[in-house]
Amino acid sequence: MKIQSRISPAAYKSEDFIGKYQKLIKDTVIPYQYTVLCDEAPDTEKSHVVQNFVNAGKAVKGEDVGDGFYGMVFQDSDAAKWIEAAAYSLADFPDAELEKTVDELIEKIEAAQDTDGYLNTYFTIKDKDKRWTNLSEGHELYCSGHMMEAACAYYEVTGKRVLLDVMLRNAEHIYNHFIAEGHEGYPGHPEVELALMKMYRCTGNKHCLELAEHFINVRGVDKHFYEKEKEKYDWTVWGNNRSDYDYQQSGKPVREQTDATGHSVRAVYLYTGMADLASETNDKSLFDACKTLWNSITQKRMYITGGIGSTVIGEAFSVDYDLPSDTAYAETCASIGLMFFASRMLENEVNSEYADIMETAFYNTVLAGMQLDGKRFFYVNPLEIIPGISGVSPTHRHDLTERPKWYTCACCPPNAARLISSFGQYAYGENDTTAFCHLFAGGTVEFRNGMKLACKTAYPYDFTVTYKIEKGGTIAVRIPAWSKNYTVELNGETKSMSAEKGYVYISVEDGDSVKLILDGTPRFVYASTKVPELSGKTALCRGPLVYCFEGADNENDVLSVSLKRGGKVNIGSFDNNLLSGTVQLTAEAVRREDSNTLYSSDAPIEKEYTAVAVPYYTWGNRGENQMRVWMNEMR
Amino acid sequence: MKIQSRISPAAYKSEDFIGKYQKLIKDTVIPYQYTVLCDEAPDTEKSHVVQNFVNAGKAVKGEDVGDGFYGMVFQDSDAAKWIEAAAYSLADFPDAELEKTVDELIEKIEAAQDTDGYLNTYFTIKDKDKRWTNLSEGHELYCSGHMMEAACAYYEVTGKRVLLDVMLRNAEHIYNHFIAEGHEGYPGHPEVELALMKMYRCTGNKHCLELAEHFINVRGVDKHFYEKEKEKYDWTVWGNNRSDYDYQQSGKPVREQTDATGHSVRAVYLYTGMADLASETNDKSLFDACKTLWNSITQKRMYITGGIGSTVIGEAFSVDYDLPSDTAYAETCASIGLMFFASRMLENEVNSEYADIMETAFYNTVLAGMQLDGKRFFYVNPLEIIPGISGVSPTHRHDLTERPKWYTCACCPPNAARLISSFGQYAYGENDTTAFCHLFAGGTVEFRNGMKLACKTAYPYDFTVTYKIEKGGTIAVRIPAWSKNYTVELNGETKSMSAEKGYVYISVEDGDSVKLILDGTPRFVYASTKVPELSGKTALCRGPLVYCFEGADNENDVLSVSLKRGGKVNIGSFDNNLLSGTVQLTAEAVRREDSNTLYSSDAPIEKEYTAVAVPYYTWGNRGENQMRVWMNEMR
Repeated sequence: MKIQSRISPAAYKSEDFIGKYQKLIKDTVIPYQYTVLCDEAPDTEKSHVVQNFVNAGKAVKGEDVGDGFYGMVFQDSDAAKWIEAAAYSLADFPDAELEKTVDELIEKIEAAQDTDGYLNTYFTIKDKDKRWTNLSEGHELYCSGHMMEAACAYYEVTGKRVLLDVMLRNAEHIYNHFIAEGHEGYPGHPEVELALMKMYRCTGNKHCLELAEHFINVRGVDKHFYEKEKEKYDWTVWGNNRSDYDYQQSGKPVREQTDATGHSVRAVYLYTGMADLASETNDKSLFDACKTLWNSITQKRMYITGGIGSTVIGEAFSVDYDLPSDTAYAETCASIGLMFFASRMLENEVNSEYADIMETAFYNTVLAGMQLDGKRFFYVNPLEIIPGISGVSPTHRHDLTERPKWYTCACCPPNAARLISSFGQYAYGENDTTAFCHLFAGGTVEFRNGMKLACKTAYPYDFTVTYKIEKGGTIAVRIPAWSKNYTVELNGETKSMSAEKGYVYISVEDGDSVKLILDGTPRFVYASTKVPELSGKTALCRGPLVYCFEGADNENDVLSVSLKRGGKVNIGSFDNNLLSGTVQLTAEAVRREDSNTLYSSDAPIEKEYTAVAVPYYTWGNRGENQMRVWMNEMR
Repeated sequence: MKIQSRISPAAYKSEDFIGKYQKLIKDTVIPYQYTVLCDEAPDTEKSHVVQNFVNAGKAVKGEDVGDGFYGMVFQDSDAAKWIEAAAYSLADFPDAELEKTVDELIEKIEAAQDTDGYLNTYFTIKDKDKRWTNLSEGHELYCSGHMMEAACAYYEVTGKRVLLDVMLRNAEHIYNHFIAEGHEGYPGHPEVELALMKMYRCTGNKHCLELAEHFINVRGVDKHFYEKEKEKYDWTVWGNNRSDYDYQQSGKPVREQTDATGHSVRAVYLYTGMADLASETNDKSLFDACKTLWNSITQKRMYITGGIGSTVIGEAFSVDYDLPSDTAYAETCASIGLMFFASRMLENEVNSEYADIMETAFYNTVLAGMQLDGKRFFYVNPLEIIPGISGVSPTHRHDLTERPKWYTCACCPPNAARLISSFGQYAYGENDTTAFCHLFAGGTVEFRNGMKLACKTAYPYDFTVTYKIEKGGTIAVRIPAWSKNYTVELNGETKSMSAEKGYVYISVEDGDSVKLILDGTPRFVYASTKVPELSGKTALCRGPLVYCFEGADNENDVLSVSLKRGGKVNIGSFDNNLLSGTVQLTAEAVRREDSNTLYSSDAPIEKEYTAVAVPYYTWGNRGENQMRVWMNEMR
């Protein structure tokens, strides 16, 4: 079958659950984040990112801007991700004023580009001579990558090419440095690979494809590259350990890597680029490597919420089955990256296992990363919070009980904004003949192949999805693994359809109506007994949603509650006033009386209890209180 | 009632379980450790501690020894703890050759003392000018303290005063510096306080008492002392954070401290000195502070094994109820220190809660610290070990699956040696009228008050303890809290006796026989529901022994095993060939079949299983395998 590809950014118009989120991004997140980027948000961590571009523009003109840079070495990327989010948002919600704001920011960025195509405010303001001398930590390629993504998005939505041309010049500059001039090296923080693939797809520029391929192919061939770089140019940003090959995903050529290791965002960004290149070039060995790494993540190193990178030490993958709930790192950006990786895997192989994980990551970790009002953000997404320990204990300092506003390292908030506002590109795909429905999202979609459909659903709180076909062809609809049963109706008639790698393929004509009924029965989920943290525990899920138990609903104490094996679970009705609209589940449980001594050999006293669960993505929206995903279970 | 005090070091002659351990210390540990100290042990971390004293001796004479120091800043203390262990051992096992070896080492130490009484090889060899300029990290007072303890022990056992005189001169030097000359400061690593109390008790030297009192009373009065010191003398050993008052137990005067915080060994050494001073001076406010800190530890911050200091970060106490099994630090030295603290609390108040904890710490964490053959040592004592994660995951690197030989920081092995060889001082106490039996240990005891008894017991594997009274008086025998029932017989006749603060007091005459029968029924122990890590879990204990489940006895997989609530527990017979002689317990359980997927909503398949447990102190003696103390429980 011909490769499946993403739909164009403007092809999906959202409604319902996703529509509400995209509206929140447009109304609250994008404006708020812009005030942050401009340092106009009160009581908020200083960003300086816009000013950095202004100052870099002056520096390019030879003006002395002194100490004119502020922020992390990768500060530029915050602006890039914001532009990308704004671009996707403009596709849904045309807004001349926002577009003007973006155009003005792009002007500043353009002005900050050096005559040779180089673009990075940190190096341009602070020290031009250090360009390309610290790939390990310098994040120049990372920042370029994000700006390339922004450029493609903005061009695709608005047709405006100013930023795209800036980034084509920048890509050419990078090409000259690494390929024409033959300088060694590969990105410390992968990102440019996937971005160059976007640039190639958007512009057809062969140098972009060649560069992406180059960075992927040279990675890890000389595993000592970062060490040699350090010897040659002795300066550092954070004093990274250049010999930590696992952290850097650089110990072996990528095709020989088997375990997902190191900094989890870097890892999945790299794998995304690899999978993208594999589908573009039909590179079987590269796809096989991607599949092995995918399995490493999803079969051994992933939380039930789609969170990855379980340890704060290096924001990294740990070893197999090391998935602590309370000290989890599980960065929001890493789950966003996992969605990228999944979407590119789908372009190699239409298989519901990728879309299942993409959905899990989205509805749980990614959405949990943002407060329901769009104003605060989690970077770290633990599966258990106990006030008094979480955020306080030396090993739990990173696991906060409530979302903070903006961090010095502000990677996650704009990343969530661009992901949510481009949800359609993950939900739908296409090839010449087929419309792929990977995720269930109300709204209309127009495919490049001519097909057109309108989807109606109250997903993820109802499990009936109706596709009204405006222009026919073949529609491929995912059957999630969590749905033990399903029914497909074509124009009201039940069709007996078996799924192929998790998708049902239905030929449809203009005016047809396809209805999918999935099984929304709440289910208890158990982990492999190989996960030490989770033995004896169970989690409650419904559809794509992982549920959690918060103190707010459970007498401020979830620690003493155990769920009953196979106990009855009641599904509440949808409550618009609860947590921006949600459905509670209640489960048969027991509550243990505290012995009030640290250790006691008295038999526990337990009473019947009905435990109340809410979706994980809604946690931490009602003040500091306990939260637990994995509950003890009594048989 | 008059204060209870420790018996003299030579008063107890051991037999049975403790006797076997003391023999092991004498035959294996003491000789092995001496070869290490002399750098004559093959394939072992270099110690250099004896050579440091030789070189310091030359330096004192004005010879240039150049780079003659090797090791940690507190390297001297290894020799001190070894001498102390050797002294106690000599009391049980006279050995002219060992005594000669100690005498020769003491000669070297004496030679290393400067003319003004100063004694520390690090500063004497490396830089005399830095003396007393880094109390935060320099460990001079810590090393002096350990050598004082060694001096007292060796004098008390052999009557030889060379080292005692050296340390009296050293104490006088310290007195001059801190009191006569009035230099500010208090010990970075508490230890000298408790040692000075020993010196005072051993010699009657009032300056020792005054110094101990001084260091305790000035601590935390100026909480900025270490910061000011750093400003004045800008040098560092490890770059300690001088503003971490919790870590340093220096944020408040000691009488105002309420939570056990910071480096756990430092904490309990400090509290030991405080409790010692409180009993000596009848200082109620100081005892009250000790009691508050004792409760903080034992009611909120202690593992069931008597392990304390749950986090590797700073080898420190964490917050209340933060007691992870798998990432536990629980240093052997900290549990030894907890025993010190308990023994001093008993001198303030005869109350079984102190002796109960002292016993728990000893039979579990302290004994677990040493391999059964006495040749390898744990510093870190986790309650769960999973090969593949433990020792490997970034957050579990300190939790080793097997005991290593000797560390660069070799604090624990000699500490265990001196503790075990002086077990009698913890087991028995006395005052003018009464012989206190805190712990149950076969052997004979002669009290300063004239009483004399012989104890027979197969404790901790049998719970009948018989005291044959050779010289009568009052015998006070502890009834452990874990023993729900007990019987006391005097000359074969059951006496109805109620315990007073956990002790029964019996008047005995020469020739009487007292028999105590405790309840050795295995028991399931549950933690407070406030401990997140332990909800839904149970531990199996018998007498003072916490049991654990090892892969070696359980099909190499303890993770899939859950114990049945109230299930039958069978007590094996004592097996001399198993783990140096032990009793296995077997418990009704279920074993869950692995779903072989990371997450599954299939109901778990379980089969009946009989789980096998061995005492925690024996774990890790059969190669790398899983180990778990807290097991999931099915009702």
